[in-house]
Amino acid sequence: MPIITLLTDFGTRDSYVAELRAVLVSAAPAATLVDVTHEVPAGDVRAAMYLLGRTWRRFPPGTIHLAVVDPGVGTDRRALALSHGGHLFVGPDNGLFTPVLQDATIVRLRVPHGAAPTFHGRDVFAPAAARLAGGKPLATLGAGVTDPVMLPIPAPGRTADGLAGQVVYVDCFGTLVTNLPGVAARDASHVVVGGEFRAPLGRTFSDVGMGESVAFPGSGETIEVAVRGGSAAQRMGAGVGTEVLLRR
Amino acid sequence: MPIITLLTDFGTRDSYVAELRAVLVSAAPAATLVDVTHEVPAGDVRAAMYLLGRTWRRFPPGTIHLAVVDPGVGTDRRALALSHGGHLFVGPDNGLFTPVLQDATIVRLRVPHGAAPTFHGRDVFAPAAARLAGGKPLATLGAGVTDPVMLPIPAPGRTADGLAGQVVYVDCFGTLVTNLPGVAARDASHVVVGGEFRAPLGRTFSDVGMGESVAFPGSGETIEVAVRGGSAAQRMGAGVGTEVLLRR
Amino acid sequence: MPIITLLTDFGTRDSYVAELRAVLVSAAPAATLVDVTHEVPAGDVRAAMYLLGRTWRRFPPGTIHLAVVDPGVGTDRRALALSHGGHLFVGPDNGLFTPVLQDATIVRLRVPHGAAPTFHGRDVFAPAAARLAGGKPLATLGAGVTDPVMLPIPAPGRTADGLAGQVVYVDCFGTLVTNLPGVAARDASHVVVGGEFRAPLGRTFSDVGMGESVAFPGSGETIEVAVRGGSAAQRMGAGVGTEVLLRR
Repeated sequence: MPIITLLTDFGTRDSYVAELRAVLVSAAPAATLVDVTHEVPAGDVRAAMYLLGRTWRRFPPGTIHLAVVDPGVGTDRRALALSHGGHLFVGPDNGLFTPVLQDATIVRLRVPHGAAPTFHGRDVFAPAAARLAGGKPLATLGAGVTDPVMLPIPAPGRTADGLAGQVVYVDCFGTLVTNLPGVAARDASHVVVGGEFRAPLGRTFSDVGMGESVAFPGSGETIEVAVRGGSAAQRMGAGVGTEVLLRR
Repeated sequence: MPIITLLTDFGTRDSYVAELRAVLVSAAPAATLVDVTHEVPAGDVRAAMYLLGRTWRRFPPGTIHLAVVDPGVGTDRRALALSHGGHLFVGPDNGLFTPVLQDATIVRLRVPHGAAPTFHGRDVFAPAAARLAGGKPLATLGAGVTDPVMLPIPAPGRTADGLAGQVVYVDCFGTLVTNLPGVAARDASHVVVGGEFRAPLGRTFSDVGMGESVAFPGSGETIEVAVRGGSAAQRMGAGVGTEVLLRR
Repeated sequence: MPIITLLTDFGTRDSYVAELRAVLVSAAPAATLVDVTHEVPAGDVRAAMYLLGRTWRRFPPGTIHLAVVDPGVGTDRRALALSHGGHLFVGPDNGLFTPVLQDATIVRLRVPHGAAPTFHGRDVFAPAAARLAGGKPLATLGAGVTDPVMLPIPAPGRTADGLAGQVVYVDCFGTLVTNLPGVAARDASHVVVGGEFRAPLGRTFSDVGMGESVAFPGSGETIEVAVRGGSAAQRMGAGVGTEVLLRR
């Protein structure tokens, strides 16, 4: 009974997610469907990449991850299925899968005649995920691909008294997720966000008073910056790409 | 293991959807629940009708579609269960089921004593859906109905140089879904929305530049009008009922 | 095949709910996951308490209710698992479980080394729920607790001509849910909200005209106040705690 996870920017107001689910429950009735989210900002491949990179490993081996944030749908961008670390992934070739491309086996999916050019999620990717759930080998789904699109992933750099990183994701609470490794917090006393806002290192939100800011090694294993009971993104005018310095 | 789909305007913030699910998992533990959406605008029977009409056929035969957008809950509007095309449907008699009423077998559900007059979804419709999922024949659920409420469905008309239709749904991206048949796009060069905004016919979003508008045969088999990276509804001041002309 | 319900304030935009689900489908693959909601206002333990109190009983005995609205995560507030009325509950010791603490058997969960101090939902509570779903006895999960945190639950009082209660929850339609017992509506003619807004007693929304206000015995067995086609909360400037008088 394989698991199929769903990660899209389709929103939950319309019929689009239901049409994906209809394909999956029809063609892979024994699979368990698990939503990651359908509220990725429209076309935000980087946000989808972050969410995929953070979640896939927590599911059991054999899980099929259907991820469709696809601003180039209907163009000649390739449609992919791939295996990595015992998991399977299906979606567009636009960098979304960057975190799982290393040592991956990748194939290019055929686009069936009659697939809606605006809805490959339903007509290309979900049918491929269902086939994989049914036990079809990856290699039978298409020809091999060796040059998938990869997005540059920013790496933190050393500074005189610590590390320089940046915000890579902002969650719905306005918490800033950075690319600074959580373990580096041990030797640090505070962070500086956007060259201006200082937040002490702590363990959790409640280490500071209401409305105060705090940094901590987050649940995704990098350093996060939050405002207790508020939004760090708003308070600090910060977003993806904002510089965050970790200081001794 | 039958499938039960859920389509409501209950929102996902409160306990209402969970109370439906509780009835279903208690009374039909073997059924698979699949959400269509719970974010139909409150009381918008036409939007629910569009979403139901678009999705039901994609599920396997035998699926039970529980659809509760019910502004007249607790009044003497009838509660229905019906079969059409090998699928089953349960919900209020307010026109929501217009797309599936032709050749349907329809019964009127009894309202159990003690049903909350404001929550027939939980106390009338979900129990009926569970009974159907358990294999109870439709005819045992109530007396036959031959005059269900039907909503007029606007049909496109011919013009000197094409077709005149209208917007029937606006999705969460602001894309305008029309009632103009997708196949008619073959002989056309552009659409005119609201007598003012022109959009060329294409295949998909990426056929035009960012911020430009485009029309295409949509994934629901009618013509849609979108703004790439933006909202056609906003740009064109358009909504359900706005005229859309298809021109050669 | 036990059921696990999920009630959180994590929102549905990020990966947090998916990370809970990943733990559960990995460690309790036979369980059925049912979302109550993930849109409790951030840190609003009272709203979570209301939603839990309203829904748990509608699920079958043996259901495990995972409820994580946890503003004190990572502090020394205790982590609990408890049984009450044949159901099991897992979450923080902050009053959320007040409606089910009477006659409950309660244990304190151990926080595993390495649990993220900001995400006990994933690292403490979901693993405990999975263990219970796998049949592990409650008593094996931790030492007994006899003094759980309880929130005061406001009780309505008698007045010269009826009852005085208050709003305890506002739903997504702006309907005011009070603590006035539904059965008391029989002897009453109207309510007064906030000392100012009068609404007649009825049965359902459609008992009044569009835009008019109405009170009725609600589906949660207490009196509710609504504006047909509008928001009573907005119209009456009312929220949790606003006084509602029931009058003969």
